[in-house]
Amino acid sequence: MAEKIYRVNMGDLSVRVEDVPAALQGLGGRALTSTIVASEVPPTCHPLGKYNKLVFAPGLLSGTRAANSGRLSAGAKSPLTGTIKESNVGGTAAQLLARLGIKALILEGLPTPCQFYALKINAAGIEIIPENDLVGAGNFAVVAALEKTAPKDWGLLSIGQTGERCQLAANISVKDPDGKLRSLGRGGLGAVMGTKGVKYISIDATDAPKSVALADEDKFKAAAKTFTKALLDHPVCGSALGAYGTNVLVNIVNEAGGLPTRNFRSGQFDRHEMISGEKMAEMIAARGGKNRHGCHAGCVMQCSQVFVDKDGKYVTSGFEYESIWAMGAHCGLDDLDLLAEADSIMDDIGVDSIETAVTIGLAMEAGVIEFGDGPGFLNLLQEIKKGSPQGRILGSGAAVTGKIYGLARVPVVKDQAIPAYDPRSVKGIGITYCTSTMGADHTAGYTVATNILKSGGFVDPLLKDGQVELSRNLQIATAAVDSTGLCIFVAFALLDDATALPAVVEMLNARYGLALTADDVTALGISVLKTEHAFNQAAGFTKAHDRLPEFFSDEPVPPHNAIWDFSDAEIDEFWNF
Amino acid sequence: MAEKIYRVNMGDLSVRVEDVPAALQGLGGRALTSTIVASEVPPTCHPLGKYNKLVFAPGLLSGTRAANSGRLSAGAKSPLTGTIKESNVGGTAAQLLARLGIKALILEGLPTPCQFYALKINAAGIEIIPENDLVGAGNFAVVAALEKTAPKDWGLLSIGQTGERCQLAANISVKDPDGKLRSLGRGGLGAVMGTKGVKYISIDATDAPKSVALADEDKFKAAAKTFTKALLDHPVCGSALGAYGTNVLVNIVNEAGGLPTRNFRSGQFDRHEMISGEKMAEMIAARGGKNRHGCHAGCVMQCSQVFVDKDGKYVTSGFEYESIWAMGAHCGLDDLDLLAEADSIMDDIGVDSIETAVTIGLAMEAGVIEFGDGPGFLNLLQEIKKGSPQGRILGSGAAVTGKIYGLARVPVVKDQAIPAYDPRSVKGIGITYCTSTMGADHTAGYTVATNILKSGGFVDPLLKDGQVELSRNLQIATAAVDSTGLCIFVAFALLDDATALPAVVEMLNARYGLALTADDVTALGISVLKTEHAFNQAAGFTKAHDRLPEFFSDEPVPPHNAIWDFSDAEIDEFWNF
Repeated sequence: MAEKIYRVNMGDLSVRVEDVPAALQGLGGRALTSTIVASEVPPTCHPLGKYNKLVFAPGLLSGTRAANSGRLSAGAKSPLTGTIKESNVGGTAAQLLARLGIKALILEGLPTPCQFYALKINAAGIEIIPENDLVGAGNFAVVAALEKTAPKDWGLLSIGQTGERCQLAANISVKDPDGKLRSLGRGGLGAVMGTKGVKYISIDATDAPKSVALADEDKFKAAAKTFTKALLDHPVCGSALGAYGTNVLVNIVNEAGGLPTRNFRSGQFDRHEMISGEKMAEMIAARGGKNRHGCHAGCVMQCSQVFVDKDGKYVTSGFEYESIWAMGAHCGLDDLDLLAEADSIMDDIGVDSIETAVTIGLAMEAGVIEFGDGPGFLNLLQEIKKGSPQGRILGSGAAVTGKIYGLARVPVVKDQAIPAYDPRSVKGIGITYCTSTMGADHTAGYTVATNILKSGGFVDPLLKDGQVELSRNLQIATAAVDSTGLCIFVAFALLDDATALPAVVEMLNARYGLALTADDVTALGISVLKTEHAFNQAAGFTKAHDRLPEFFSDEPVPPHNAIWDFSDAEIDEFWNF
Repeated sequence: MAEKIYRVNMGDLSVRVEDVPAALQGLGGRALTSTIVASEVPPTCHPLGKYNKLVFAPGLLSGTRAANSGRLSAGAKSPLTGTIKESNVGGTAAQLLARLGIKALILEGLPTPCQFYALKINAAGIEIIPENDLVGAGNFAVVAALEKTAPKDWGLLSIGQTGERCQLAANISVKDPDGKLRSLGRGGLGAVMGTKGVKYISIDATDAPKSVALADEDKFKAAAKTFTKALLDHPVCGSALGAYGTNVLVNIVNEAGGLPTRNFRSGQFDRHEMISGEKMAEMIAARGGKNRHGCHAGCVMQCSQVFVDKDGKYVTSGFEYESIWAMGAHCGLDDLDLLAEADSIMDDIGVDSIETAVTIGLAMEAGVIEFGDGPGFLNLLQEIKKGSPQGRILGSGAAVTGKIYGLARVPVVKDQAIPAYDPRSVKGIGITYCTSTMGADHTAGYTVATNILKSGGFVDPLLKDGQVELSRNLQIATAAVDSTGLCIFVAFALLDDATALPAVVEMLNARYGLALTADDVTALGISVLKTEHAFNQAAGFTKAHDRLPEFFSDEPVPPHNAIWDFSDAEIDEFWNF
């Protein structure tokens, strides 16, 4: 099917199908969402107002049989940060949209009067249908209600109660092949979907081709095979991630002294082993869960899992290091069963687990509950679900909660919560937090790969040398990878295996009949970053926003007693490219 | 007494008395607080952290017998807006501090561990004393507790429960000559005082001279007489303000279609007469209250009042147009008795009545209570007093509350609530809201004087022509007046009476033995604005922040169906001087 752009105006409930303009033809995923947002959304507009747009775009390789190519990008002006935002996710939606020929889906306008709708997408187009029954339901209830009558080949994007309330920590849930949920997690995109009055988007690919058309099938097949081999041969992609999930990092980052504990007061958590990937894998194996699980068809890494309780009953999947860190070390909790239950609740009500757990850690700092109070943590999640005043506060994320409680030790950059690596003891990631176009975000330029995991060489995490360049190179590469639809974890193979990047370039060429080189991929990454940065500057962001909170410079963090010691000028070198 | 700068470090509980450096010698009030903040506070610091400072400074003429010269300035980096902030107030403190030779009082550092203190100032210096009994008390209880043993000649600066909690809408209360309260209202300076652990500052001027020294007593006396006459001769300063208080504006601004009603949905309130200055004066007269009352010794305008209940019992004073508008037209309330009770509660718990009432209007917009629900309004004030989650939300001001409830129609500029004039139908004040160095603030450049009251000429409020120049000239003049210690209402006389400005210049010269001209006064205003603007730019503010919320451009406001139609470039002309 020819690729088209689908524009859904929630103001007049119309759908417009447009040819892909020349300027957008080589773009996909993040490159496409960021380009559309930058060209169509006024940078100073209110993110919850009628001028914001929510753009979904499968990656350039989504819908093909390339390994790990099933990532979907979503973009908008973020209500959490006020910056441009791209979030990406696995699940089934990217591949189904690509097969349906939907290069981008743009939601615009606001419904008047306020009313919720469902968007039903299939090969015939998009229907907008008033939705009342599922308003107020959690994401799992939406899946359960729809799967009764859903075709085999279906996908779902939905928001929970927090998205309906336009809360800043709200995410967008995406169904995976097993009916479980993945998340377009950060930046509050669920709130934008909430303003648009879209409770869910269902995708029926029954009448779509099984795979997208390829300009050169043989060339693609050969390149895909090389790429898969590179992934499987890599110790992280082919082995560690599958064995322990991303949570393999707890022990490693703790050992490195970079595991932020009790609101960034230490880089080591005395009970780290209780929440480690090793412990988790052992529990899952003993209980008959699954330690290897893919979030989308074609994933060869299988870093997800099926976490079950003592009776073998399903609790959660996609139980990630970041979430476990935020609930665990950051909040002082050490019971993986409780963390799994909390993870499932956050998926259900539709909040970013990083932002929300970091925020509850701030509530602990403020004395709302004590550090280490697991039942208290679960109670606060119920408050968020109910939308009580206490829940409204916590559903608004770390920066707002810090203001509500008059706190100065608030770990955010551009109002987004800092994730699971202390920037004082893993300095490269601190540069990424400062300079990312989307606020504090580890995925934007994952220097931990090189600082800690020694992928792509080694840059000492405790020294300043080389960190700016490392973060810049990785942010450029990431912007490109996020545009292909490939999972960011392929970056380990790209960094360490000389066959991997040429194989990706070859796949792109074989898919579209192009003659790109590796330099073109880098140029794409640079162009994406510059587009995003220009949007932010027009929105009012300056170098003064590319800074960590002052407590990182003032408080040495054990065990290395490291401080954040970059000068402003050193940080600002980042954008000199 | 020789003027000194008193520096109180709450980190090590030390007091340092410093000579006034040459660079600060010609400065007072706002010029002094802004210069000290700009030179000593890092612009990107956290406003609630240890690098912020809270500076109090009497005006250049405070402590003299010049009419209306008893204004005190307070400055800091604002936790509400993130900009530099100066707020000024009447009451007795400015004159007492000036008589004690305190040119500026600088609070710096944070107490560790967290503990509240009282600062006791007298002619012998400053004592820092742990305070436990009054922690948790409202401002009136602080006055009551202290006046039992206070000398005749005393002053008080204190914070209520919200300031102790470092809430963003917290103000600093200042005792007036009758033991009633005035407020350093806007920008959350009470939260900064809360972080410093200072519950109150008492001032005992028993052993101070009755008046500050003058370089030329006769010249001063003659100029002061001319100045007083100019004030008394002016219809606003000498008559309207005394008769009806600032609340004389309700009927006038309603008639002009600029009285924002039910969260800026109309410029006229159908029940405006119920909350008007005329109605208020009638009630006060009938009940035996006082319609004329000065907030500080030497005030000849007497725009304050003593509002009493049906039984003649004191309820509130300093019952201003802005507060009455925000509770009244903005929230749809029309019962002046209820508004007076609410005003008194806000004074007691120590919150800015503009910010707080605008915020409760947003809670009405969000459906927490209905527009027009008076008992509901009072209940929500009790929640703020208690510090419940609901109260924490509302005590954090309009911008945070808008985020909590996912609202896009949030009337703020730089996160400070827009006050009592709709910028669509009083366009000059819209330029002031956009460009003020302190977020939306009517006092920064009160174009209403010329747009509506025809003071200083007339610039049609509904047309764009001349508004930028008007706002600029008034912002420059205001920055100068705010440095003299004179009440901003003297500006009416300065605009309309050719004898007034020379008299002010003459008083300054006679006080300090200088030879200033009117041009020097203008240059001072320009210099203050530029200092403040530079601080904000270094803090990360750009032209993109000099904007009104988009709904002002999208929604015509009755009765004129006016919209905000300035282009970005037209607004940005403001800073071209």
